[in-house]
Amino acid sequence: CDLVKGAHDAWSGWLCVLLVGVCAGALAGVIDIGASWMTDLKFGICPAAFWLNREQCCWSSNETESVHGNCSQWWVWSEIIGGKNYKEGAAAYIISYLCYVLWAVGFATLAASLVKTFAPYSAGSGIPEIKTILSGFIIRSYLGKWTLLIKSVGIMLSVSSGLMLGKEGPMVHIACCIGNILSYLFPKYGRNEAKKREILSAAAAAGVSVAFGAPIGGVLFSLEEVSYYFPLKTLWRSFFCALVAAFVLQSINPFGNEHSVLFYVEYNKPWIFFELIPFIGLGIIGGLIGTLFIKANIWWCRYRKTSKLGQYPITEVIVVTLLTAVLAYPNPYTRMPTSQLIYLLFSQCGLSVKDDICDYKRNYDRAQTGGVEMAEAGPGVFNAIWLLLLALVFKFIITIFTFGIKVPAGLFIPSLCFGAIVGRIVGIAVEQLAFVHSELWFFSGECLKGEDCITPGLYAMVGAAAVLGGVTRMTVSLVVIMFELTGGVRYIVPLMAAAMASKWVGDALGRQGIYDAHINLNGYPFLDSKEEFGHTTLAADVMQPRRGEPLCYVTQDSMTVEDVENLLKETEHNGFPVVISHESPFLVGFVLRRDLNLAITNAKQTIEGVDSNSLCWFTNHPPAEQSRTVRPPYTPVKLKKILDMAPITVTDQTPMETVVDMFRKLGLRQTLVTHNGRLLGIITKKDVLRHIKQMDDEDPNSVLFN
Amino acid sequence: CDLVKGAHDAWSGWLCVLLVGVCAGALAGVIDIGASWMTDLKFGICPAAFWLNREQCCWSSNETESVHGNCSQWWVWSEIIGGKNYKEGAAAYIISYLCYVLWAVGFATLAASLVKTFAPYSAGSGIPEIKTILSGFIIRSYLGKWTLLIKSVGIMLSVSSGLMLGKEGPMVHIACCIGNILSYLFPKYGRNEAKKREILSAAAAAGVSVAFGAPIGGVLFSLEEVSYYFPLKTLWRSFFCALVAAFVLQSINPFGNEHSVLFYVEYNKPWIFFELIPFIGLGIIGGLIGTLFIKANIWWCRYRKTSKLGQYPITEVIVVTLLTAVLAYPNPYTRMPTSQLIYLLFSQCGLSVKDDICDYKRNYDRAQTGGVEMAEAGPGVFNAIWLLLLALVFKFIITIFTFGIKVPAGLFIPSLCFGAIVGRIVGIAVEQLAFVHSELWFFSGECLKGEDCITPGLYAMVGAAAVLGGVTRMTVSLVVIMFELTGGVRYIVPLMAAAMASKWVGDALGRQGIYDAHINLNGYPFLDSKEEFGHTTLAADVMQPRRGEPLCYVTQDSMTVEDVENLLKETEHNGFPVVISHESPFLVGFVLRRDLNLAITNAKQTIEGVDSNSLCWFTNHPPAEQSRTVRPPYTPVKLKKILDMAPITVTDQTPMETVVDMFRKLGLRQTLVTHNGRLLGIITKKDVLRHIKQMDDEDPNSVLFN
Repeated sequence: CDLVKGAHDAWSGWLCVLLVGVCAGALAGVIDIGASWMTDLKFGICPAAFWLNREQCCWSSNETESVHGNCSQWWVWSEIIGGKNYKEGAAAYIISYLCYVLWAVGFATLAASLVKTFAPYSAGSGIPEIKTILSGFIIRSYLGKWTLLIKSVGIMLSVSSGLMLGKEGPMVHIACCIGNILSYLFPKYGRNEAKKREILSAAAAAGVSVAFGAPIGGVLFSLEEVSYYFPLKTLWRSFFCALVAAFVLQSINPFGNEHSVLFYVEYNKPWIFFELIPFIGLGIIGGLIGTLFIKANIWWCRYRKTSKLGQYPITEVIVVTLLTAVLAYPNPYTRMPTSQLIYLLFSQCGLSVKDDICDYKRNYDRAQTGGVEMAEAGPGVFNAIWLLLLALVFKFIITIFTFGIKVPAGLFIPSLCFGAIVGRIVGIAVEQLAFVHSELWFFSGECLKGEDCITPGLYAMVGAAAVLGGVTRMTVSLVVIMFELTGGVRYIVPLMAAAMASKWVGDALGRQGIYDAHINLNGYPFLDSKEEFGHTTLAADVMQPRRGEPLCYVTQDSMTVEDVENLLKETEHNGFPVVISHESPFLVGFVLRRDLNLAITNAKQTIEGVDSNSLCWFTNHPPAEQSRTVRPPYTPVKLKKILDMAPITVTDQTPMETVVDMFRKLGLRQTLVTHNGRLLGIITKKDVLRHIKQMDDEDPNSVLFN
Repeated sequence: CDLVKGAHDAWSGWLCVLLVGVCAGALAGVIDIGASWMTDLKFGICPAAFWLNREQCCWSSNETESVHGNCSQWWVWSEIIGGKNYKEGAAAYIISYLCYVLWAVGFATLAASLVKTFAPYSAGSGIPEIKTILSGFIIRSYLGKWTLLIKSVGIMLSVSSGLMLGKEGPMVHIACCIGNILSYLFPKYGRNEAKKREILSAAAAAGVSVAFGAPIGGVLFSLEEVSYYFPLKTLWRSFFCALVAAFVLQSINPFGNEHSVLFYVEYNKPWIFFELIPFIGLGIIGGLIGTLFIKANIWWCRYRKTSKLGQYPITEVIVVTLLTAVLAYPNPYTRMPTSQLIYLLFSQCGLSVKDDICDYKRNYDRAQTGGVEMAEAGPGVFNAIWLLLLALVFKFIITIFTFGIKVPAGLFIPSLCFGAIVGRIVGIAVEQLAFVHSELWFFSGECLKGEDCITPGLYAMVGAAAVLGGVTRMTVSLVVIMFELTGGVRYIVPLMAAAMASKWVGDALGRQGIYDAHINLNGYPFLDSKEEFGHTTLAADVMQPRRGEPLCYVTQDSMTVEDVENLLKETEHNGFPVVISHESPFLVGFVLRRDLNLAITNAKQTIEGVDSNSLCWFTNHPPAEQSRTVRPPYTPVKLKKILDMAPITVTDQTPMETVVDMFRKLGLRQTLVTHNGRLLGIITKKDVLRHIKQMDDEDPNSVLFN
C-alpha cells in the first residue's frame, strides 16, 4: 500500500506536467491560428471560406504566390468595398489604409476593454510577476482562470492589432495559469505552494517551448530567467512538459509546415574566422540597444505611474495603436506582421524570395544548374536598407511606449526585430565588402572572387540574439533558443560570442534586465539570487526592533489571553517568537499570528472556563515556578499544537551575506536573531529587501509586501 | 580604487575560465592527435613520415581510399616485417594479429605502470570523485599537476590500446585538474574552496565540450550531473569556458575536418509518427542495458575490492587487455576503434560507405542523378548484423571488467557503442519492415513503395542516447549533447522520448546511475541533492552525543588551558561548541579544533605568564561572577578572535528533512542543536550521511570521511 501510494505520489507530478504540456500545446495552437487569421483580417478576407487566413486561402486556390502576392481567392478590403477593380491605385490604397487602421484600433480597444473589465492581471508580459511568484510571493488570482481566458483572447487581439509586441512572454504567463489551475487536480501540488512552484517552473518551460518551438530552450529559459529554485527533479519535469507541449503544438501544425519552430531557416555556408569581429560588434550594439530600451521604457513606465496618464489605460491603448497603425502602413516592412519581417530578415536570399532585400545582380548563367550565386547588391537592396532603418527607428520608439500599456504584450518579438534589422544591414555591408574587396587578407582563402561567402541572414540572427540578450540578459537559454530555431550546430560560436558581448556591455551600462527592472519598478519583493550581497553588515544591524524599540514576543506560560489579544491588536506582525519568560528570554519557538488568533477565538468559544484571564500555555505541563495561587484557577489555553518548535535562527553576529544566502536558498520568510540563546529580534524578508536597497543607495520604502 | 579592485575581482573569474578553456581545448587537441596516432600504430606506420596517422599519411599520397582501405604510403606491420608482398594471406594476418595484440598490451601496461607509479588518482573516469569534490569534500592532490600529466598521457595510451573505454570522462577530470591548477593564479579562487568549486564546475563543462565538441551539452552536463551548487553566475562562466575550449579545439582541428564534433552526421529525412514506438522501445532497452551494466560492474568492483584481485592492478590490466585484443581482432567491428564504429553506425548509407552494413540492393538506374534510394537489404547487411550482435555481447561483457581497472577510462564511448549497435539493428529491422510492408497503415502516406523512408543511423543515435541515459541517468544534457552532435532540431522528440523512457526504466530498476553507484561503492561522503529525504525523524534523533554520552564543549571563560588540552587529547572532533558555563550551557559560538590547538600552542610559547592553569577566555571582558581569587592571577589566554560567533543552529525538534535541506543548500559541515537556547548536541555531515544510509537500510559505516 505504501508502495502504491508512493508510486501515485511520484507519478502525480509527471501526470500533472503531462496535462500542462498537452493543454499548453493545444492552447498555443489555437492562439497561433486565431492570431494569424485576425492579423490577415486587417488586410482582407477569404470570401469562399472566411475562417481561412490568407496563406490557407491561397493554398486552396492552388495558385503560386510570392510572399507579398495575393491570390485571386483572397480579397483585400478595397476589392470587397469597391469591387474587383479596386486592387490598385490611390483610392484602393486609401481604403486599405483606413481598413487597416480601423481593424487595428478595434482589436486593440477590444483587448484593452476585456483586460480592464475582466482581468487586469492579464496585461503586460507577466514574466516579472511570474519571477516574483516563483520566488515565493503570492499574488492572488494572478494565475487564475479569468486571467487565463482573457490573456488568451487578449493576446490574439493585441498581436493582430499590429502593435509592436509579441505573444511569447504572455504565452509563458498563459502556460503558468494552466499549470496553476491544473495543479489543483493534484492535492500534493495544489495545496502546497512550494510544490506548486515546481509545476509552475515546468509550465514556464512549456510556454517558451510552444512560443518558439524550442523545448530545450524553454527549459533553460525557465532555469535561467524565470525560476528561483530549480532542483534537478524540476529540470526533468520541465523537460518532459516542454517536450509534450512542443509535440502537441507540432501535431496541430499551426504554421502549416513541417517545422514546429517560428523562424525556420537553414544556412549551409560556414562562417569564416574574420566574421567574429562583426558578430562581436553586433553583440556590443545589441547590448547598447537593449540597455537604451530598458532605460527609456522604465522612464516612461515610471512617468505613467506617477502622472495622470495611468488613469486612462484604454485611451492610451487607442492612441498608441492609432499612431502605430497610421505610421506603420506606408512602410512595407512595418506593415507586415513583425514575426514575418523577422522571418524575411533571417532567411537566405534565393530565387524564391522576391523582396527588395534580395535584389542582387544575379548570375543567370548558372541559374540552370540550380546553384545561383549572388553577390553584388542591386538598387533594391539599398532601397530596402533605407526602409529598414526607418522601420527600426519607428519600431524602437513606438515599442518604448507600447510595453507597459494595458494589453497582453511580450517583448521577445520586438527585440528580435530590432536586432534582425541591425544585423541584416551589417550583414549586407560585410557581404558587399567581401564582394568588392575579396582580395583583403582576412577574406583570402575563404571568399572566391565574385562568389558570395557571407550570409546576411546569419547576421540578422546574430543581431537578433544580441538585442534580445541586451534586453533580457539571457545567455545560455538565448543561444539554445536561437540554435533550436535554426538547427545549425555551426553557428553556436557566433551566437555565443554575440550573446556574451551583449551581456557584458549591457551589464556594464545598467545592471538589470527588463524583467528585473520592471520588478524593481513595481516594487515586488523579489530577492535577486543572481547578485552577490557584498557588504559587511551583521544581522544585528538589520533586525527589528531597532535599538530602543520594544521587542514583541509571547512567553510560553505566563501571558493571559488578554495579554495576547492586546499584543495582536497593537501589532501587525505576521508571527511572534515565543520565549521562556520575560526574565529569561530564551527562544522556544515561533507562532503565526493567524494560528494564534484562530486558536484563541476558538478556545474562548468552545472550551468552558476559558476567558480573558486564562493563561496561554505553549508547554505541555504546568509552569513549575509560578505559584498557581496568584491567579484563580482559570482553565489554561493549550497552544503547543500551533507552536513551531523549529524556527530558523541566526546569531546577532552572523554576517548579512550569510543571512541573505539563507533567505535565498531556504526560501525563508523570517529568521529569529539570538545572542547566547536569548531572543534579540527578528529579520523578515522585507527587512532583508529593504536593507539591500539601502545598501545600494535606493529608496528602501519602494518595496511592496503582503 | 574600489572600482578598479571590484572590476579586477569580477574579471579575474572570467580571465581564469578563459585560461582554463584555452588550456583544456589545447590539451584535448594534443590528446586527440596523440591517441589517433597511437591507435593507428597498432596496425601499421607511415614510413615516409612516422608522425602521421593513417588518414594523414594517405592524404599526403593523394590517393582515394575507402574507410577500411590502406593507401600505398601506409605500411601495415606485415608489410614492414615481411616485405611489400605480405599484404594479404594467412601469414600476414597472423603477423598483423600479433603486432596488434603486442602493441595493445604494451600501451595498456605502460599506462597502468605510469598510473601506479606516479599518480594513482588518475585511474578511472574521475567523474564520481569530481562530483564528490564539488559537493564539498576535499581529496588532496586529486586535481594536482601529476594527476593532470599522467592522466593525459595515460588516456592516450589506454585509448590506443583498444580497451573498451573512452576518453570523455577522463577529459572532464583533466579539465578539472587544469581548473584547479590555474585557480591558484587567482588568489580569490585559489584560496577559497567554495570559489574554486565555481571554476571547477566551469572546467567540467569545458571537459565535456571538448570531448564531444558540444559546448552547450557540456554546460548542461556540468549542471545536471557533476555540479552540486550551480548558481547562475557559474552558468555563464561555464558557458564561456566551454565555448572557448570548443573554439580552441576547433582551431586545432584534430579530426581534420570542418566539424569539431566527434560524430558528425546529417540526416535529411523526417521521422514519422509511428517510429516513436521503436524509439521508446529503444529507450526501454537502453534503461535495461544500462541498469544491467551498473549492477554487473558494481558487483565486479566490489569483488575486486574485497578479494586479492585488488592487489595486482597491473596484472589485471594486462589480462584484460590481452583478452580484449585477442578476442577483438577477428571481428572487424571490434577491431576498429570504438569511436569509429559508432561513427559508422550513426552514418547514413550512401554510395561512399563501402561497409557490409550498407550492402543494400542499390537502384543503379538513379545513381547518375545523384539520389540513390536504397531499400532492400543485401546479404552483407545480415552478415553485418550477426557480427554486430557478437560485438555487442563481447563488448558488453568486457566493459564490465574494464571499467574499474587502474588505467584512465571513461564510459561514454562504450555506452554509446552498445546503444548504437542495438539501435542500428532495430533500425534495419524497421527499415525492412517498412520496405516489405509499406502498405501497413502506420507507414501509409509516409513511405512510398520501394523507397526508403527509415534512417537506421537515426535509430543508432537514439539507441546510443538511450543506453548512455540508462548508464548515467542524464536527461537534458544527454539530449543536448546528441543534438549538438548531429545538428538536427528535428530529432529532439525521438531523443527526448528515448531518454525519458530510459531514465524511467532505469530508475525503476535501480535508483543510482553509474557515478552515484561508484560514489556509494567507494563510500565517499556525498550528500545526494537529487533524492528527497522523506522520513519523519527529528534532529534530536540524529545528533551526537547519543543519550547517556557526555557532550564535549568548551566554556567561554571557566576552562583552563589544561582542561582544553585534555579535551583536545581525548576527542577527535573537528570543532567544539562554546557555551556560557557548565551550569548554563547556552550556546555562544563554535571553535575549530585546528584553530584552538594553534592558538593555545602559540600562546604558551609567546605570551609570558601563560601556563596550564591559565584560563581560556572567549570573551573580551573578565568573567564577572567568578572571583579571581580562586585561581592565582595567571595571564588568561584570549581566544575571542578564533571564535565563530555565528554558527548555524537548529532546534532539537527540527525535522531531519529541513536539516538535510540546510546541509545541502548551505553546504554545511556541521550544525549545532539547541533547545530553548541550551546546547544539546551537534550534527555533522557524517551523522547526516549515516542517518540517510540507515533510513535506507544500508550499512551506515560504509561512509568514509576525512
